[in-house]
This record gives sequence, structure tokens and C-alpha cells, in this order.
Amino acid sequence: MTNDKIYTNFNTDGAARRGEVTTPHGKFQTPAFMPVGTSGAVKGLISSDLEECGAEIILGNTYHLYLRPGTEIIKNQGGLASFNSWNKPTLIDSGGFQVFSLQDLSKISDEGVEFRSHHDGSKHMFSPKRVVEIEHEIGADIIMAFDQCVPFPADRTLAEDGVRRTFDWAKICKTTHDELNSQRDSKLSLFGIVQGSTYNDLRTLSAEQLISLDFPGYAVGGLAVGESKAEMEDMLAHTVEQLPKDKPRYLMGVGYPEDILMAVSYGIDMFDCVLPTRNARTGYVFTSEGPLIYRNAENADDSSPLDPNCDCKVCQRYSRAYLRHMYNQSEITGMVLATYHSTYFFQKLMQGIRAAISENRFDSFRSDFLSKYQPR
Amino acid sequence: MTNDKIYTNFNTDGAARRGEVTTPHGKFQTPAFMPVGTSGAVKGLISSDLEECGAEIILGNTYHLYLRPGTEIIKNQGGLASFNSWNKPTLIDSGGFQVFSLQDLSKISDEGVEFRSHHDGSKHMFSPKRVVEIEHEIGADIIMAFDQCVPFPADRTLAEDGVRRTFDWAKICKTTHDELNSQRDSKLSLFGIVQGSTYNDLRTLSAEQLISLDFPGYAVGGLAVGESKAEMEDMLAHTVEQLPKDKPRYLMGVGYPEDILMAVSYGIDMFDCVLPTRNARTGYVFTSEGPLIYRNAENADDSSPLDPNCDCKVCQRYSRAYLRHMYNQSEITGMVLATYHSTYFFQKLMQGIRAAISENRFDSFRSDFLSKYQPR
Repeated sequence: MTNDKIYTNFNTDGAARRGEVTTPHGKFQTPAFMPVGTSGAVKGLISSDLEECGAEIILGNTYHLYLRPGTEIIKNQGGLASFNSWNKPTLIDSGGFQVFSLQDLSKISDEGVEFRSHHDGSKHMFSPKRVVEIEHEIGADIIMAFDQCVPFPADRTLAEDGVRRTFDWAKICKTTHDELNSQRDSKLSLFGIVQGSTYNDLRTLSAEQLISLDFPGYAVGGLAVGESKAEMEDMLAHTVEQLPKDKPRYLMGVGYPEDILMAVSYGIDMFDCVLPTRNARTGYVFTSEGPLIYRNAENADDSSPLDPNCDCKVCQRYSRAYLRHMYNQSEITGMVLATYHSTYFFQKLMQGIRAAISENRFDSFRSDFLSKYQPR
Repeated sequence: MTNDKIYTNFNTDGAARRGEVTTPHGKFQTPAFMPVGTSGAVKGLISSDLEECGAEIILGNTYHLYLRPGTEIIKNQGGLASFNSWNKPTLIDSGGFQVFSLQDLSKISDEGVEFRSHHDGSKHMFSPKRVVEIEHEIGADIIMAFDQCVPFPADRTLAEDGVRRTFDWAKICKTTHDELNSQRDSKLSLFGIVQGSTYNDLRTLSAEQLISLDFPGYAVGGLAVGESKAEMEDMLAHTVEQLPKDKPRYLMGVGYPEDILMAVSYGIDMFDCVLPTRNARTGYVFTSEGPLIYRNAENADDSSPLDPNCDCKVCQRYSRAYLRHMYNQSEITGMVLATYHSTYFFQKLMQGIRAAISENRFDSFRSDFLSKYQPR
């Protein structure tokens, strides 16, 4: 079974790509940033907030949703989009990253990962076949193959092992997916995930193996896991070169605005990261001038908005002083406000990136953005 | 100095009153329910949510705001309305209820209450003069006299003591307030608080004493503190009879929809209570059919909205199953959704009450509401 083509490229600007991905729940524009809604909610936001912020696709997690509320309930409730009232595209990660991170709670073999729930210690098994079945039960638009993401640093043997297993499992995922997809009217898209740690030749091998399976999109996994920014850039540049031009490319778990700009320059189309949302809840937002630790005492009596150049509804109405007070009081209203702002900021960044690529001025957009933005 | 008249009565329906209160930040319609924003935020909601829900006045707390962020910052930030971006009326409670509740942390005398901060143990003194000064620094529209709310049950000596002290302090509050008010352009309104526990004659005495000071509005304090519903109703009926008809009447800390309807029938104009917001965060919302414990397992796979008769944005998009899942995951998105719904529900109830009084059909509105609403 050949996968339908889901990616349309509008134009390129250097290696940066302006395009569109089509899913059962509609199209989203690329490059795109997906806010993370692990358990079916972007923490602190409701669907209309995400719509206001301009998000066109969000991310969920198979591991979390499988454990709670469970696929039975999500299925009964009409699938994830109906359950969480997000009627636009959703991508769900396979949960591989999570079950491999469980450490003492998991046992890895060629068959898959046996793990215990972090909720109640109950035993579960994720095999590549079972994961794709679960993903189909959850019913997101884009689903991810079950891969093995090795920790950083990984010695060559471990990295080779991860690549081999990722390929073996990708084949099972693909077969399972094709069969399940043939039974449904609206077709999901299964993406392969390129592994290979920091070894160029392993990255090449992993990409070639996955491409042989003809996925409709490819993710770059195993980056932003602790390596240096230079290592990440090298590995990304090398990996993207191996990927087909007519399919979307997704860099998992990235990242900071400066990393997104870097990755876009190599031709990445999709991103996800908890940074804008998780950090917002702990007193840290992103602004056009750089990260702002709004919880710091220096903001206690500062009447300026989080970001003087932002037109979001938070920056229009609320001061740093108020946000800092909210943080001090552990008020969830403050978490909501900060999360809204940072989510809006990331979506505006992507809109700016897309407009710049369309007009063949991505490089100047990037340097202009970075000239004002001070990373920490 | 005579207080400006702030209350306009439009009509009465039995003892129920339809009116309007004018403040520096605009008018609000009565009977009114004030969502509680103790520390300057209604937990989980932002100002635009409150506006959408139809709230016209919210409540803050002097004790909490005095300790954090402190009056200096609120003053510097342009007063409470500017600080928390709520550009409609706000009432702040004096904090008396809080400092008296601190128990081991407080020392009560005729001069006031010496207490230790629950944040850092630092020592503070609330005298009636100081409280009104703080209230003026915070700059809400309606401020409350510093009273002594005795616990329930209170023996007669303790209740008498509370009434005496409440009157002594009310005089000091009034003098301080009149002086501070004369120095400002937009005038705040100081309300007196009737005490007297469950003793009819003490309630009468307290009301007479406060009325002699000519406050622009009167609150009924010391109810809903543990007495039975019948006792509360008796005491309320008796107390309201003592109050002037041309001033707003505020029943503090009430309450459940059925209690609000009861109190409106005796002529109460203003209410506040943490129930719709606090309970929402712990898995309990109010609906037209009665309270719904949405955290309960029976809702796990229920696709119906929290309230089938509600047109709020939460009930239009989200199911009980989703809310129950959010609760199970301690997701703040769920707290936001539940708080929004219950806040909307209370405001709709007040709108219904106001429309019914306007059309002289309050009794049938009340019995119609209660025929569908099952209190727990």
C-alpha cells in the first residue's frame, strides 16, 4: 500500500521550506510548531485559547492517553479530537520516549517494552504492533512509529542497536498501520522516526531504512536529548539531507526559538516542545527580547507587559508585576496567562517564519529576530 | 460628611429588590453575585472570562492583598483595578474574618488584631484605622469596615462582645474613611457589617448602631458560619428588616443557589462565595439540575455536557468524560473549564433572578428553579 501524499510545498528559500500538510482534520501550514497536550490538554489552555493563538495542530502522547483515560473511553467519545474538543489536526507521539525513560519501571526486549504504570504500578506491554493499534484507537491524524530513542551519550553499539530495533519495529508498525488504515474512511498518517544518535553513518542508515518503507513523513528523533547545540546542528543538517523533499520533516522535542530558526534553515517543517508551556507555569516566558523570568523579584513592581512587542490579549492587559504576584501566590490564573502568552509567541514566530520564506527573506528574518532576541 | 447615595431601586417584588449600585468603576446590577478573587484573581479565570460570564463586580481580600503583593505595589500599579486588569467594580473584604481565623497566629484586643503572616510568620497589626487606610491604598470601589465575626456557636457574652467591638471599630473606620475619601477624587464606599450571632436582639442592636453612623451600604456578617439553614434564614429575615430600604444589603459568604434565592426573597442585594470556584477545582460544579460531582467515576464515559441546559462555552464544547479525565490528571485546564462553567452558572442565575423581579414573578422563578434543581 502506498501512502497518500500529504505534503504540498509552496516554495523554498535556501533549504527552508514553506508548505502545507493535509490531514483528516484539515490542513496545517508549515513550518509549524505544535503545542504539547500530553494527556489531551495543553496545560492551562482551552481549545478556544489555542485557536486564538493561531495553533493549527497540537500534540498528544500515546503513553499518557493509553493509561488515562484509556483508549476505550477515547474511542467511545468519538476519538481524541471529539474528546478534547480540538477539531483541528493532532499528532500523537508513540510513547516510546516515555516508556524508555521509565528506567526501573521498564524492561526492554526485541518484542517491545514491558513497563509499569507510573499511576498505579500496573503492568503493560508496548510492542510496535500494539502501539499502532492504540494510536488508531485514539484516532489522531498523524501517528508516530514506535522507535527506540537511546540516551545521550550513547556508545556505538547501543546506537546501532537502537537503529536496528527502530527499523525492525518500523516494519511491524507499517504493516499494522496499513491494515488498520485500510479499514477506515479517514486515513491516518504514520511517520517514521530516524535514530542513530550522533553517528553520521548510523543516521544515514536509519534514514535509508525508513525511506525504504515509504512513510508519508519522517521525524528526526534522538536530538535535543543533552548534546551540545553544535552537535545537534551537525546531526540535523546531515540527517535532513537524507530525507525526501516531498514529505514533511519533523524535528521532535525542539525547542528554543533560536533552535527552531536553525532547523527551519535546514528544511525542517514541524516542531513540538514543552518549553513554552512548562516554563510558563514555572515563571519563565518567551518574548521578542528573549526569555523573561517573570517570577524574579525585579518584576515585582514593573508595569510593563511580559513582551512590549506582543499584541496578545495577555500583554494587552497584564503587567509583569501582576504575573510575578500570581506566581508568588501559586495562582493558576498566572499559569494560564503566562502559558497563553508563550503559546501565542511561538505561533507568531512560526507565522513570521512562514511569511518570510514565502517572500524569500528567511535569512534576514532570522538575523533580524536574533538581533533583538537574547537567548539566556 | 454624608455618604453619597449609591443604590437605586428599580422595583420590588414582595421583599425582593431589583436595583443598581454605582461605584467609581461603573454600575452593577442587583441582586448581584460577586466571584471571589481573594488575592487579586478569581482562581483559574482571567478578566475576559469574567466579563464573558457576565460578572459585573468581583471581590478581593484586604488581608491577602496586604501581605502579598503589598499595598505599595498595588498603589504603584495604579490601584487594584489597574493591577489585576478588572476595570469594573471590586469590593474588598476587610480581612477581619481571616485574621480572626488565624487562631494561634493572632492576638485580639480592643485595639485590633495582632497577627503573624501565614507566609513567613512576620508580625502585623490590623486596627480599624489601619485596615481602612490599607483598603484606601488598595483602592477598591466598596470597602468593608473591620468587624469582629464571632465563631458559631457563640455564647451571649461573646456575641455581645463582638457587637460592641464591631460598633467601636465601625466608628473609627468611618472617621478614617471620611477623612481619606475627602482627599480623593473618586469616592470609595465603606459598608458597615451587622453582627450579633444568632441573637435577635443583638442583631437589632448592631444594625441600629451601624445605621446611626450612616453607611452607604450594610452587610450581614456572621452567617453561613456553621448554623443550620433554618437558623440562617431566621436570623437573616430578622436582620434585613432592620436595614434601610435605600441602601444596598450584602449577605457575606453566601452561598448555594437555594440560599441565594432564599436571601433574595428577603431583600438581599449582594452575595459572594467561594463555592462556585473552589468546588470547581475539586471536582464539583453547579448545574441547572443540581450540583454535579464531575470527578466521580460515573462520568468517566459520559459524553453529555456538565449542564445540558447551559449555553456557556464549556458546555458547548466539553463533556463530563473530558472534565473527569482532566480532574484525574490534575490538569489545570480542567480547573479552568469547571470554574468557568460554575461562574457562568451563578451569573446566569442572578440574571434570571433580576429579570424575574423586574417582571414581578420572582416567586415562580424561584419555585421553577428549585423544581429542577436538586440540592445535595
